[in-house]
Amino acid sequence: MKDKKAETSIPIHDLLARRWSPRALDPEAEVSTDQLRALLEAARWAPSCGNTQPTRYLVGRRGDETYKRILSTLTESNQAWAHRAGALLVGCAVTRNEKGAVPMAEYGVGLATENLVLQAVAEGLAARQMTGFDPDAAHSEFSLPDEVRPVVVIAVGVATDASIFTDEQDIAREGAPRERIALSDIAFTDEWGNSTFPA
Amino acid sequence: MKDKKAETSIPIHDLLARRWSPRALDPEAEVSTDQLRALLEAARWAPSCGNTQPTRYLVGRRGDETYKRILSTLTESNQAWAHRAGALLVGCAVTRNEKGAVPMAEYGVGLATENLVLQAVAEGLAARQMTGFDPDAAHSEFSLPDEVRPVVVIAVGVATDASIFTDEQDIAREGAPRERIALSDIAFTDEWGNSTFPA
Repeated sequence: MKDKKAETSIPIHDLLARRWSPRALDPEAEVSTDQLRALLEAARWAPSCGNTQPTRYLVGRRGDETYKRILSTLTESNQAWAHRAGALLVGCAVTRNEKGAVPMAEYGVGLATENLVLQAVAEGLAARQMTGFDPDAAHSEFSLPDEVRPVVVIAVGVATDASIFTDEQDIAREGAPRERIALSDIAFTDEWGNSTFPA
Repeated sequence: MKDKKAETSIPIHDLLARRWSPRALDPEAEVSTDQLRALLEAARWAPSCGNTQPTRYLVGRRGDETYKRILSTLTESNQAWAHRAGALLVGCAVTRNEKGAVPMAEYGVGLATENLVLQAVAEGLAARQMTGFDPDAAHSEFSLPDEVRPVVVIAVGVATDASIFTDEQDIAREGAPRERIALSDIAFTDEWGNSTFPA
């Protein structure tokens, strides 16, 4: 398993620094029920706008029907690696409740899912999020209520060596350094584009 | 400062369990440049859809003009407590780039901002996110480009005792237990609404 710790200009918490999104997952490694429970508890305790808690997860484990149905909604290129995950989850947003439109529902799924993937790191697992799936197919496959929108699919497993891939391009991509735009291009003071935070 | 550790059915990482969103912030406590840098680095290394990195922050520190301008965009009820924060940030989404619409931009700001608030916990700080602000005012106040949407304001500071408030309701609210819906209501297996994860 590749260590791809974030290169930061000042130390950040190890849990955040070590998180990355591998595609090379061990096809034998299990994600236990306790681990899944911990991931979901982490998501559950995320903040949300006015505590509206818009996030839901459909949870499949390798070998079960839910897993197969989630896998079937993925693009071909995502299926090619994600079928090795120990668990596949669909992160959904409840966009309406009895009070009307839920504010910031998509944003809320983002907050919760970041907690979920960080708990995966804490468990010695790894998680990769995907938007390369068919939300309509997921909606129909699980007979979701109208107000529920599938937002993301999350593959959870144990990261392994890129040599699991046969294609040279896949191997190279897995080993490539992680890249981010400079801190001075994302954090502005005083005026848009004006930064006191060079990276 | 109130400890409001999440009550989970199985342990989760302490950094996630200890995060909550206090309003009672110490009006004297500073958020240092190094701490702000660490928060922004944490956000910078968050995942995003296709690594499009849609998240930007406007960063104000107590006493500077940016802080005052951000504070002025908040609702009155948010100004009432947020003026004690050591730093105020506006989290923005870049909704278009040279390739067209940025996918999942709001979701991406959620992922990044969860990292940011967790790094605040790691720094001994606390953060509370707000949607109670005027995004149009923020847009105009900072002359944001058309494609940039202010999504959230984040107050960062040092949590303090609720006795800082004079209103009894404010004190009671700050001390109230944190609440979440049951795990069995957010995580489903097989069918929507069907859970093997009782909380």
